[in-house]
Amino acid sequence: MRIRVINPNTTAAMTALIEASAKLVAAPGTLVEGVNPTMGPASIESHYDEALAVPGLLAEIARGEAEGVEGYIIACFGDPGLDAARELARGPVIGIAEAAMQYASHLGRKFSVVTTLGRTAGRAWDLAERYGMERFCANVHACEIPVLELEDPKARKVIADACRDAVAADGSDAIVLGCAGMADLCEYLSDEVGVPVIDGVAAATLTVQSLVTMKLRKSGRGEFAAPLPKRYVGLLADFGIEEKEARV
Amino acid sequence: MRIRVINPNTTAAMTALIEASAKLVAAPGTLVEGVNPTMGPASIESHYDEALAVPGLLAEIARGEAEGVEGYIIACFGDPGLDAARELARGPVIGIAEAAMQYASHLGRKFSVVTTLGRTAGRAWDLAERYGMERFCANVHACEIPVLELEDPKARKVIADACRDAVAADGSDAIVLGCAGMADLCEYLSDEVGVPVIDGVAAATLTVQSLVTMKLRKSGRGEFAAPLPKRYVGLLADFGIEEKEARV
Amino acid sequence: MRIRVINPNTTAAMTALIEASAKLVAAPGTLVEGVNPTMGPASIESHYDEALAVPGLLAEIARGEAEGVEGYIIACFGDPGLDAARELARGPVIGIAEAAMQYASHLGRKFSVVTTLGRTAGRAWDLAERYGMERFCANVHACEIPVLELEDPKARKVIADACRDAVAADGSDAIVLGCAGMADLCEYLSDEVGVPVIDGVAAATLTVQSLVTMKLRKSGRGEFAAPLPKRYVGLLADFGIEEKEARV
Amino acid sequence: MRIRVINPNTTAAMTALIEASAKLVAAPGTLVEGVNPTMGPASIESHYDEALAVPGLLAEIARGEAEGVEGYIIACFGDPGLDAARELARGPVIGIAEAAMQYASHLGRKFSVVTTLGRTAGRAWDLAERYGMERFCANVHACEIPVLELEDPKARKVIADACRDAVAADGSDAIVLGCAGMADLCEYLSDEVGVPVIDGVAAATLTVQSLVTMKLRKSGRGEFAAPLPKRYVGLLADFGIEEKEARV
Amino acid sequence: MRIRVINPNTTAAMTALIEASAKLVAAPGTLVEGVNPTMGPASIESHYDEALAVPGLLAEIARGEAEGVEGYIIACFGDPGLDAARELARGPVIGIAEAAMQYASHLGRKFSVVTTLGRTAGRAWDLAERYGMERFCANVHACEIPVLELEDPKARKVIADACRDAVAADGSDAIVLGCAGMADLCEYLSDEVGVPVIDGVAAATLTVQSLVTMKLRKSGRGEFAAPLPKRYVGLLADFGIEEKEARV
Amino acid sequence: MRIRVINPNTTAAMTALIEASAKLVAAPGTLVEGVNPTMGPASIESHYDEALAVPGLLAEIARGEAEGVEGYIIACFGDPGLDAARELARGPVIGIAEAAMQYASHLGRKFSVVTTLGRTAGRAWDLAERYGMERFCANVHACEIPVLELEDPKARKVIADACRDAVAADGSDAIVLGCAGMADLCEYLSDEVGVPVIDGVAAATLTVQSLVTMKLRKSGRGEFAAPLPKRYVGLLADFGIEEKEARV
Repeated sequence: MRIRVINPNTTAAMTALIEASAKLVAAPGTLVEGVNPTMGPASIESHYDEALAVPGLLAEIARGEAEGVEGYIIACFGDPGLDAARELARGPVIGIAEAAMQYASHLGRKFSVVTTLGRTAGRAWDLAERYGMERFCANVHACEIPVLELEDPKARKVIADACRDAVAADGSDAIVLGCAGMADLCEYLSDEVGVPVIDGVAAATLTVQSLVTMKLRKSGRGEFAAPLPKRYVGLLADFGIEEKEARV
Repeated sequence: MRIRVINPNTTAAMTALIEASAKLVAAPGTLVEGVNPTMGPASIESHYDEALAVPGLLAEIARGEAEGVEGYIIACFGDPGLDAARELARGPVIGIAEAAMQYASHLGRKFSVVTTLGRTAGRAWDLAERYGMERFCANVHACEIPVLELEDPKARKVIADACRDAVAADGSDAIVLGCAGMADLCEYLSDEVGVPVIDGVAAATLTVQSLVTMKLRKSGRGEFAAPLPKRYVGLLADFGIEEKEARV
Repeated sequence: MRIRVINPNTTAAMTALIEASAKLVAAPGTLVEGVNPTMGPASIESHYDEALAVPGLLAEIARGEAEGVEGYIIACFGDPGLDAARELARGPVIGIAEAAMQYASHLGRKFSVVTTLGRTAGRAWDLAERYGMERFCANVHACEIPVLELEDPKARKVIADACRDAVAADGSDAIVLGCAGMADLCEYLSDEVGVPVIDGVAAATLTVQSLVTMKLRKSGRGEFAAPLPKRYVGLLADFGIEEKEARV
Repeated sequence: MRIRVINPNTTAAMTALIEASAKLVAAPGTLVEGVNPTMGPASIESHYDEALAVPGLLAEIARGEAEGVEGYIIACFGDPGLDAARELARGPVIGIAEAAMQYASHLGRKFSVVTTLGRTAGRAWDLAERYGMERFCANVHACEIPVLELEDPKARKVIADACRDAVAADGSDAIVLGCAGMADLCEYLSDEVGVPVIDGVAAATLTVQSLVTMKLRKSGRGEFAAPLPKRYVGLLADFGIEEKEARV
Repeated sequence: MRIRVINPNTTAAMTALIEASAKLVAAPGTLVEGVNPTMGPASIESHYDEALAVPGLLAEIARGEAEGVEGYIIACFGDPGLDAARELARGPVIGIAEAAMQYASHLGRKFSVVTTLGRTAGRAWDLAERYGMERFCANVHACEIPVLELEDPKARKVIADACRDAVAADGSDAIVLGCAGMADLCEYLSDEVGVPVIDGVAAATLTVQSLVTMKLRKSGRGEFAAPLPKRYVGLLADFGIEEKEARV
Repeated sequence: MRIRVINPNTTAAMTALIEASAKLVAAPGTLVEGVNPTMGPASIESHYDEALAVPGLLAEIARGEAEGVEGYIIACFGDPGLDAARELARGPVIGIAEAAMQYASHLGRKFSVVTTLGRTAGRAWDLAERYGMERFCANVHACEIPVLELEDPKARKVIADACRDAVAADGSDAIVLGCAGMADLCEYLSDEVGVPVIDGVAAATLTVQSLVTMKLRKSGRGEFAAPLPKRYVGLLADFGIEEKEARV
């Protein structure tokens, strides 16, 4: 089984961290590859960044399809481009917010999300609603550390404090990490905070692996069928799908 | 007052049609300009098309900001890129689905949406939920006419039939047109079907005009503050916002 | 275009203030008239007051219909009698809570309502739910100033403080003013508080103007068709609609 | 115990029918009196009729308070004026839609409402939502018989057919009768249709009797405290509550 | 009329207290009997306890059916086994949470639940949702007194304080007591706290009495029809329903 | 890793079928054991059956805990006893409805459930709501085949027809099998129906395996902490948890 973890930003160090987290949980027979787009923002911290990360992400999906990849993880907590990626891929595509929230829902009544910047909290709520997870989400807390500063040694203590405060304020049963860049902190935070801590990269990797094991692909009918062949112009001309290559 | 109607696809004929519909309802003192991006798909009929229409749309918003535009209409019923555009613009940005559904909510208990392809119905429901309009939306009906074939003389009769069927099946009080390309059919359909028919291009134009009249801009705090300065690479390198040009 | 702003209470000074606010935003070609009923309470601060303001309000709608008025604003934040008024009128009827909340929904993720007495907060929540705006409403805050004391010079500072507190407590993006009697404070509060402040009188005036511009009337079918002819007795005998005058 | 069933329309024959239905279920020690207002519409079949039935209904509540009545039933399926009546009364006030839906929720997963005119279905849905009963309400069906023609001998068969059709279409477990004027048909319909049939007049009478037995009154704090003293003018001048008579 | 109040735990002293509370409100012609199972936990304070209280509860329902009992109250605030009991019984079965919340919904906009241990709050929320009462439930508060220590003289003051705190924190209009073992404190707490206090034992007794008065039984179709005949083995072999005794 | 699939009914043939389905998807290092209780019903087709299957299920959980089992699957589509089992177990406990619905939510906009008897559809809807999956569930369809007759060779065709009808009626993207006894039909149905078909036994097995891989256990705080030590009497006396053995 061959699955691909796509870091939708263009920072290679973060891709490496994400790939390592995914590999840690994958089964022996599962080949996990971490990739990132060749175009787009260095980190994703706004709707604007998300929107502009998507073309590069979709190019990675298209490349994966050509290379026979069986499933994809979108490793950014905003799950950018998920619907479009599902149209393009034959196998499953899972976002890390989607997977983390759903696994967290099995562990108790409520989870708290601890994320990077406060301005991304609205997006987390939108996703919780979309995935039916709003009823399990006690609240979304920001530690106000930018994505690319998460690796600063001082960051982990700030995040641990934010997790502890979240559990105390929300009376929640678990913490969902609100950024792929926190993936390597999962065990540390779990020990520090004393409740289950869910990293979406691991969660989504296992979800994709499970779906491929069950031979489950996205439905090819209607909304998520392959995009229609169409002419694209300008900078994005190469994204157009020619009649001849259109899949049904 | 200067407002801009952005057709997010790259088909100039459709931009002209949209601009005409917007001008028809704008007040004398309102300058309405129709534009479309220089990059992206010729029409938008999937999540994939939507995702790839957004960079071009955002480039138009950035250009508008440089030129002193006071408000924007996103003239595609999927309201693509709305959140990102709101971060970028200082004045209001309104989607045509958003405006059409809200005006329709004033006219009775329920409206029916009549749209182009069935595969876009899911997106219409997502937007109805997002805008709080799910409770007013009786159902979404497709007439299975591609966007670029709406101007075919035979199309208007098919659409009129779809509207009549929708009203009968849903017991609805009004029809919301599910595509900017139907803007010029509004009066014809209203006469044919006998219930109010709402065109989102007109509705969104008047919403923007009203907001600018009231001097209301998007809130500059938190989630919709201007995007953070950041490095963008590859094809989209020009979308990066430099430190020096960052707005607060 | 001729539209009428109905202050549903019987205090003429407040009618004048409301009319002025409406005229400030109306387009040049729009004739705006402020009126109030000749029967009912001097101010509306309870469900009881609301219920008893409605007959006078409906008499004003009936008079407006006889005089060719094309649209109506109900200028009290409880939007009293909205459904009944819609049955009676041929053109659009819009409540100020309805319009204010919907315009506020375009400006950010959440708004806070700042209203007069705490006992009216429940009604504001009921309306937010009815209009699909509950998801945008962060909270409803009272400044405990009776409607008829809003013009007291000391009131504006109390209200400004309540707005500031609301934004801080709710993390909201905008303020919706919860009383027609606050219409003239909109600009002052916006400057003081630093977020967009929405006055429902202006918002509803522009909504009605927009609907009339689009030639959109309430749906004449089913629930909002004209009331059936019927015998009324006692004090309200004149409200009966005779067979001969029944509209379809 | 002394409770009063208020038929909010001015048709005495219907008041008698309602009073009889209420007396049939009341406990021996409970004095049940049926009354109707001296002003307002002969029947209630629109939002307009409802709005204009309320002043007369409130006058009856005020009279009941002066006479020591301990609880009230509003015997019209639109539950008109419920909030205002609750402010005015010291004891409980219950609407027949409220009581019928809640009792029906104990009998199975879903109930169907069978009502008079289709134009009133929207109001039934609004009430179902307000009372938390939307999840139990499978659908609302109209038999298109005006309220004042329910006593026609042919009507009962039409209603029985509507009930049977409703159960078959909705797979529902029970029928809620959507009009006080159907109260005397409850046993007949139950026999004909073979599922439990709930009459709101009986249901609300028993709810009020139960609340009075438990010594439960409406909360006197906040929203439902007695209306504030206030000047009323014109036709409704007598509805004003003077300072001196204001209750806390 | 003969109705039975089942205390689902096996503590006889609590059964006596519950029976007394039920008898206090029942009408003269209503025979109320308090019973408890002969198997199961001494008190119910977890999902585990609830699950294991149910077989004994169902045995009591089966015994009641054999003895001609016309209706049942499940006198534990978790309403354990309600669906299963409804399948087994011909008459109505009502849980005390169900009845208390619904009566509370008539008294104001919101109620607060005051319960025993914090770990049971989740169950209270689940029930509020199930009964459509979530919109009326402001919050659930625990006083952290175990069920079997409620009779301790010191407990009543702790509970009164919890009620007062709940009303202050939630701005609620009424208190719902979250344990059958608090039934005898209802009047005391109402006096102490100054808002209506609802005891579910009284509320459910009156609901059952009302339903039996209206001759309303659970629907015998579909989901709540009698359980199918089936072989049961092991410790619970006697719970199997033989073909010959199966009811339709 | 050692996980246990519990068939909560007492039919050994069905346990074998379920165990085989679970083993088919488990990773090489995962030891999967199928078990069933020694007490309770031969099949589960009502709330009554479910309630009485739970004690035996809990006994299996207790036995598993003593034997060092790391996670559990409850292999009945009603997910009976899930909350109680979670209190008792240290590792994850997953129901097959829970897992099947969540995996199905990744594959498209909507799924249809195809289940055995129509009387169980209400339970499926309750679970969909509880897990946040109501928004993905298009409808629940019954093929009216009792659980123990699913292995009849004629059954599979009936089920395939029900799946096809469900997809056509609902426009759904995937089928969720509504009974553990259908686990072996998954591939056949997928081929026949042409949309993804999800078997909850496989789905829950992989969910538990994933959670154990991530070292995620249920939260030990509050609601899902181990049950309190307590005296149990009668038939269920052995279920009591003694003070000395109580876990924290």
